[in-house]
Amino acid sequence: MKKVFLLGTGPGDRDLLTLKAVETIKSADIIFAPFNKGKNMALDTCKEWVEGKKFVALDFPMGKVTDEHYEKNAKLIEDSLSEGEIGVFLTIGDPTFYSTAINILDFFSDNVKYEIVSGIPSFVAAAGSSKLPLAFTGEEFLVVDRVPDQVNENVGTMAILKTFKMTEEDLDKIERLGFEYTYIQRASFEEEKVLKDKLEILGEKDYISLILARRKK
Amino acid sequence: MKKVFLLGTGPGDRDLLTLKAVETIKSADIIFAPFNKGKNMALDTCKEWVEGKKFVALDFPMGKVTDEHYEKNAKLIEDSLSEGEIGVFLTIGDPTFYSTAINILDFFSDNVKYEIVSGIPSFVAAAGSSKLPLAFTGEEFLVVDRVPDQVNENVGTMAILKTFKMTEEDLDKIERLGFEYTYIQRASFEEEKVLKDKLEILGEKDYISLILARRKK
Repeated sequence: MKKVFLLGTGPGDRDLLTLKAVETIKSADIIFAPFNKGKNMALDTCKEWVEGKKFVALDFPMGKVTDEHYEKNAKLIEDSLSEGEIGVFLTIGDPTFYSTAINILDFFSDNVKYEIVSGIPSFVAAAGSSKLPLAFTGEEFLVVDRVPDQVNENVGTMAILKTFKMTEEDLDKIERLGFEYTYIQRASFEEEKVLKDKLEILGEKDYISLILARRKK
Repeated sequence: MKKVFLLGTGPGDRDLLTLKAVETIKSADIIFAPFNKGKNMALDTCKEWVEGKKFVALDFPMGKVTDEHYEKNAKLIEDSLSEGEIGVFLTIGDPTFYSTAINILDFFSDNVKYEIVSGIPSFVAAAGSSKLPLAFTGEEFLVVDRVPDQVNENVGTMAILKTFKMTEEDLDKIERLGFEYTYIQRASFEEEKVLKDKLEILGEKDYISLILARRKK
């Protein structure tokens, strides 16, 4: 058997790693992560425990990822690990939200046993650092990766991820849906930025950003 | 100034505490938590760092909590702390989701500075341990504290919290909405239980449980 942990490194602050994440990384024989243009935030977050370990870069394109990519990378992970070894696939935030990692599971053979190590999702960290509650009693909370066309009336707050694609039409749509938006860039980092002004938001282009939208009273 | 941290202790496994949570608890002069019938899961989760520290129990009823309760407990926290001291209010999961802690903020005076320390929400831990993805690209993810009457068609998964109140009508309603349910009790604990059978689910009465419902294909 080979063992693979899909591990969420959280929003980026190393202090928001869980104790389990740190212990799991320490136990790893090989660390895996996508490594685009030599950069990987998940890897940066836990670099002090990764240093000195064997690292294998996974090749995922920035745009559309196909089954072929998942299959190829699943095979790479499996072939890299010897029998009895432990691999850790690092992923930002939590692996169960819009992650590359979760799609790879179907492509492992029966000789791979996997586990998920939860991480703090970006929207949870953003809510905490900007002190915006996500759900009061009786309210619904929605997570989306694009601005929806309609939202149920019980939704009090929605988190809109992948906001590096955000346009003026998107922001206007959020307002038409009856919500006020707050843009949060690099939540949990020292350089965290919180913006509410439309033009300022549209001037930003950072992959590590999201919008928390709260229903207007 | 007095400082209060609203701190999420996560789903219950001490290994799912963040490094920041542990350091913040260590730095506390006083630990605060609701203490119903002598029990508090948040306190149990971090007992090894709480032991020996001054503890002040907050009095919240199990049923409906009013502004009066929040005001009284906010005052108790504030009066317990001396100038310059640090208080930590422990809350299970993450403080921004359906927590008692978040409602108390409005009742602090200007002499209290507060911060939120994020925790792993229960539904994130449940998704991880039961290997149920919460959101694939293009899907919406919904969190509710009761079964909704309708759900937008883009919602792929919903987490239904506070399921100790779940009835047969609730479970039937989830099915009518087009979802399959998985009941997860005590996610992250050794005694974690994952159930899909209706009668088995209805036979359980545990506050620390939730349902992850996935849209049927």
